Amino acid sequence: MLHGHQTWVFPNRPTILSTATVGGPFEAKGPLAEDFDILHGDLWLGQDSYEKAEKKMLEEACEIAIRKAGLQKEDVQFFLNGDLMNQIISSSFAARTLAVPFLGLYGACSSSMESLALGALIVDSQSGNYVLCGAVSHNAAVEKQFRYPTEYGSQKPPTAQWTVTGAGIALLSSKGEGPKVTSATIGRVIDMGITDPFNMGSAMAPAAVDTITAHLRDLRISPSAYDLIATGDLGQVGHQIAGDLLKKHGFEIPEEIFTDCGILIYSEEQPVVLAGGSGCGCSATVTYGHIFNRLKNGELKKVLIVATGALMSPLSYQQKESIPCVAHAVSIEYNN
Amino acid sequence: MLHGHQTWVFPNRPTILSTATVGGPFEAKGPLAEDFDILHGDLWLGQDSYEKAEKKMLEEACEIAIRKAGLQKEDVQFFLNGDLMNQIISSSFAARTLAVPFLGLYGACSSSMESLALGALIVDSQSGNYVLCGAVSHNAAVEKQFRYPTEYGSQKPPTAQWTVTGAGIALLSSKGEGPKVTSATIGRVIDMGITDPFNMGSAMAPAAVDTITAHLRDLRISPSAYDLIATGDLGQVGHQIAGDLLKKHGFEIPEEIFTDCGILIYSEEQPVVLAGGSGCGCSATVTYGHIFNRLKNGELKKVLIVATGALMSPLSYQQKESIPCVAHAVSIEYNN
Repeated sequence: MLHGHQTWVFPNRPTILSTATVGGPFEAKGPLAEDFDILHGDLWLGQDSYEKAEKKMLEEACEIAIRKAGLQKEDVQFFLNGDLMNQIISSSFAARTLAVPFLGLYGACSSSMESLALGALIVDSQSGNYVLCGAVSHNAAVEKQFRYPTEYGSQKPPTAQWTVTGAGIALLSSKGEGPKVTSATIGRVIDMGITDPFNMGSAMAPAAVDTITAHLRDLRISPSAYDLIATGDLGQVGHQIAGDLLKKHGFEIPEEIFTDCGILIYSEEQPVVLAGGSGCGCSATVTYGHIFNRLKNGELKKVLIVATGALMSPLSYQQKESIPCVAHAVSIEYNN
Repeated sequence: MLHGHQTWVFPNRPTILSTATVGGPFEAKGPLAEDFDILHGDLWLGQDSYEKAEKKMLEEACEIAIRKAGLQKEDVQFFLNGDLMNQIISSSFAARTLAVPFLGLYGACSSSMESLALGALIVDSQSGNYVLCGAVSHNAAVEKQFRYPTEYGSQKPPTAQWTVTGAGIALLSSKGEGPKVTSATIGRVIDMGITDPFNMGSAMAPAAVDTITAHLRDLRISPSAYDLIATGDLGQVGHQIAGDLLKKHGFEIPEEIFTDCGILIYSEEQPVVLAGGSGCGCSATVTYGHIFNRLKNGELKKVLIVATGALMSPLSYQQKESIPCVAHAVSIEYNN
C-alpha cells in the first residue's frame, strides 16, 4: 500500500456509498445551492447558540448520509470528524448523539480530507466498514471565536474570506456502488512567515503546492491525470499564488482543471465574501455536494481534492507567531 | 485485521522502537521522576509563554525518541499528535519544526492512545514506517485556558485534578526490537450528564469502562489477560468509580493489576494535586516512561492503556452542556 513517502495508495478502493451536505442561508444564495441536501434559512437552526446550530448541521448530515446508504446508525463502525471550534466540540457532541466509536481530528480546514484519508485507510486495511468522515463549520460561530461576533459588523480587507456554514459527510464502505477513494497524500506543515489572519489564502497556498507536488511526485503522474484538481479554500488570492508557485515548480496545471472550493461556493453577486469561502465546511460541502454530483453524472472521472488548513489560533496570533499551514490531498475516481 | 466492532488487531505487531518523556518541575518531585528523559526545573523552559514552553517540550520529546532509535528527523514518515490547546497549536507548531507529514488529532486526554492506535494502524497496514505518536500538556497553559491563570491562586475542590506538564512520544516501526502494539479499541462518546469540570474523573470513568468492556468483549478475553490495565487520568475519584462500574458489568479487575496514570504520577506528599494527575501528557508520559521501563525490564509482559478524555470546552460548559467523554485503549506486549 505504501507508495512514496507521503502518499497512501488504496488497492481495495474504498467506496463512497453516499454523501450528505447541509448549508446555511448564505450558501443558499450561492451558485452551488442545488448541490446541497438541506439549506437552512435560519443561521440558528432553531438552536439557542451558533455552536449548537453547527452541531445540529453535522448531525443532520450524518443522518442523511446513513439514510441515503440504506443503513442504520448502528451499522456505522467509526466516525471521523473535525471542526474549527475550540476542543472540536461540534464533532465531539455530534459523536455523542451518534454513539459510535469516534476519532476526533484537527487539521483546521484540511480536516475534511484528513478525515477522508484516515477513513479510507481504515476501510482499505479492512479495519472497519461503514465509516463516516466529514467536517463542519459555521460562519457566526467561527467569526465569534476567531475574530469578532458578526453582530459587531467589523470591516475586513479584500483578502479576507467568508467562513462557510456547512457540514459535509461521506460514508465509506469496503463494497458497493459509488465513487472510489484511490489515494491520499498527507501534508507537511509549511510556514512562509505570513502573520495576517485576514490573508489565509496566501498563507495556505504554499502548503497546497507542497502537497500537490508531493502527490504527483509520489505517484509519478502529471496534473493531467486528473479531470479536476480542487484546493480546499485558498480563495481568489491564494488560488492565484498557488498557480504561480506550481508553475515555478514545473507543475503547470491547466486553468480549466484547476479550481478552488472557496471560489466555487459563492458568486460575484455576493461581494461580502471578499476573496471567497473558507472553513472546514467549505471543501467538505463542495466536494461531497457539487463535485460528487459531477462525478456521479459522468462529467468528471478522476478528481484530486486538496483541503488546506491554517493551523493558527487567536492566541498564537496574539503571541506574534506566523501561520503554519497544512494540506491533505485525496483522489476520488468514478467510472460509471 | 478487523476483530469485533471497535477493536483493531495488528497482525504485524508494530514495534515501539523508542520512547521519550519530558516533564516539568512538579513531575520532578513525583514518584516517577526517574522514568523521565528530561525534567525541567523551569516551567517556562526559557520561553516567553507557557504555550511556547509546551511546544518546546514536545519538540524535545520528538528529538530524543528519534535519537534513541538511531534515526534522523528525515527518516520519520508521519507525525500524529494531540494536545489540549485551542486549535492544538502545540502539536501543529512542533509539526512545523519537524517538517514531516502531520496528522493533528483531538481527543482531549485520550489523544495519547488515539495517536498510538492510528500510528499502529498506519504501520501495521504498511502505509508508513517510523511514525511518531504522542501527546503533550502543560499545567499553566491549560489552567489559563480552561480555568484561571495559576497566578490567581484560585481554590479547587478535592475532586479536581492537576494537569501534568509533560510530553510523551513513541516511535513506531514495522521492524526492530522493542515492545509490540498488538491491538487498539476505539471508544464511543459517553456522557452521563456530569457538568462539573472540577470532577472530570467521575465524568470520564463510564467512558473508560465502556471501552474496557468493548475491548474484552471484542477479543473474548478476561482482564487477567493483562499484567496491568492502566486508565489514563481518572484520578482517585474516577478510578474508584470505574472499578465499581466494571464489577457491576461482570468484569471485576483485580486491584493489583488495575491502576491509573493520574494516580501513579504524583505522590501523597504532593497534596496540591488533589485527586491526581490529568492532561494529555499524563497517560503519555506514564506509559512511555514508567510503564515502558517496566515492560523493558521484564516486570510486565502485557499491558492495556486506556487513555480517557473529557471532550468539553470552556464554552460548552458555559452553555450548560454536560461533559461528553471518550476512551481509547491500546495493548502493548513485550517478551524479551
